[in-house]
Amino acid sequence: MDNHRSHCPVNLAVEIFGDKWSLLIIRDIMFEGKRHFREMLQSEEKIATNILTDRLAMLEQMGIITKRPDPEHKQKQIYSLTEKAIDLVPVFASIGEWSIKHLPVDTEKYVHASQLARANKRFIAHLKKTLMKEHVI
Amino acid sequence: MDNHRSHCPVNLAVEIFGDKWSLLIIRDIMFEGKRHFREMLQSEEKIATNILTDRLAMLEQMGIITKRPDPEHKQKQIYSLTEKAIDLVPVFASIGEWSIKHLPVDTEKYVHASQLARANKRFIAHLKKTLMKEHVI
Repeated sequence: MDNHRSHCPVNLAVEIFGDKWSLLIIRDIMFEGKRHFREMLQSEEKIATNILTDRLAMLEQMGIITKRPDPEHKQKQIYSLTEKAIDLVPVFASIGEWSIKHLPVDTEKYVHASQLARANKRFIAHLKKTLMKEHVI
Repeated sequence: MDNHRSHCPVNLAVEIFGDKWSLLIIRDIMFEGKRHFREMLQSEEKIATNILTDRLAMLEQMGIITKRPDPEHKQKQIYSLTEKAIDLVPVFASIGEWSIKHLPVDTEKYVHASQLARANKRFIAHLKKTLMKEHVI
């Protein structure tokens, strides 16, 4: 059984994050340090509750994030990135570089994005290592 | 007037190509040399006619592609990439690298993708230059 439209690398990637929200959720966890559902709901783009629920479940199923009960608040889930997600750092860097060149990015507000867009390989490697420590046990 | 959900670089990018088809259309023009509507319809992922029409119009409006009548077949339109599109080469390279590591890519069929995923900066620069000559007058 194979439900992929093709085995092209671009297609397989957009089958996972080719929508208006998935990369923003990963961005929030990766660069904003958001680990809880409620925090992700409060992002500027105003994701709807049902869409956030859907996308988190999909990202978990695709091996991009994991969740576990928060030891400090038993009612809450805490979300973590997997190594598969952390390997998306260079994708965010290349998207950031392109957006800053071609789109009306607010570079003062999104300082992190500007840094990443100018990032050299060493900085990307450092960020990935930091994320691995925070997210992957 | 500003209809953007935010001015985050990731958001502004997914507002353009955050869907299941746009990056595949750009891929077809960029890597498969497809320049006509009919050729794009025949791609493996089987895009529907109305979706292809929609996405091409959106990509034209966003300054990613241009179209003009084909001098050899007056009925046909010929599509070209803009510099804004050609600057997406590093985004395709980083997506390709990620997909090959984490998803069931057919690397024999998509040789070009594997090359790009391993590409060094010199190769990316060369590809961009070639595309500029072919597409941007």
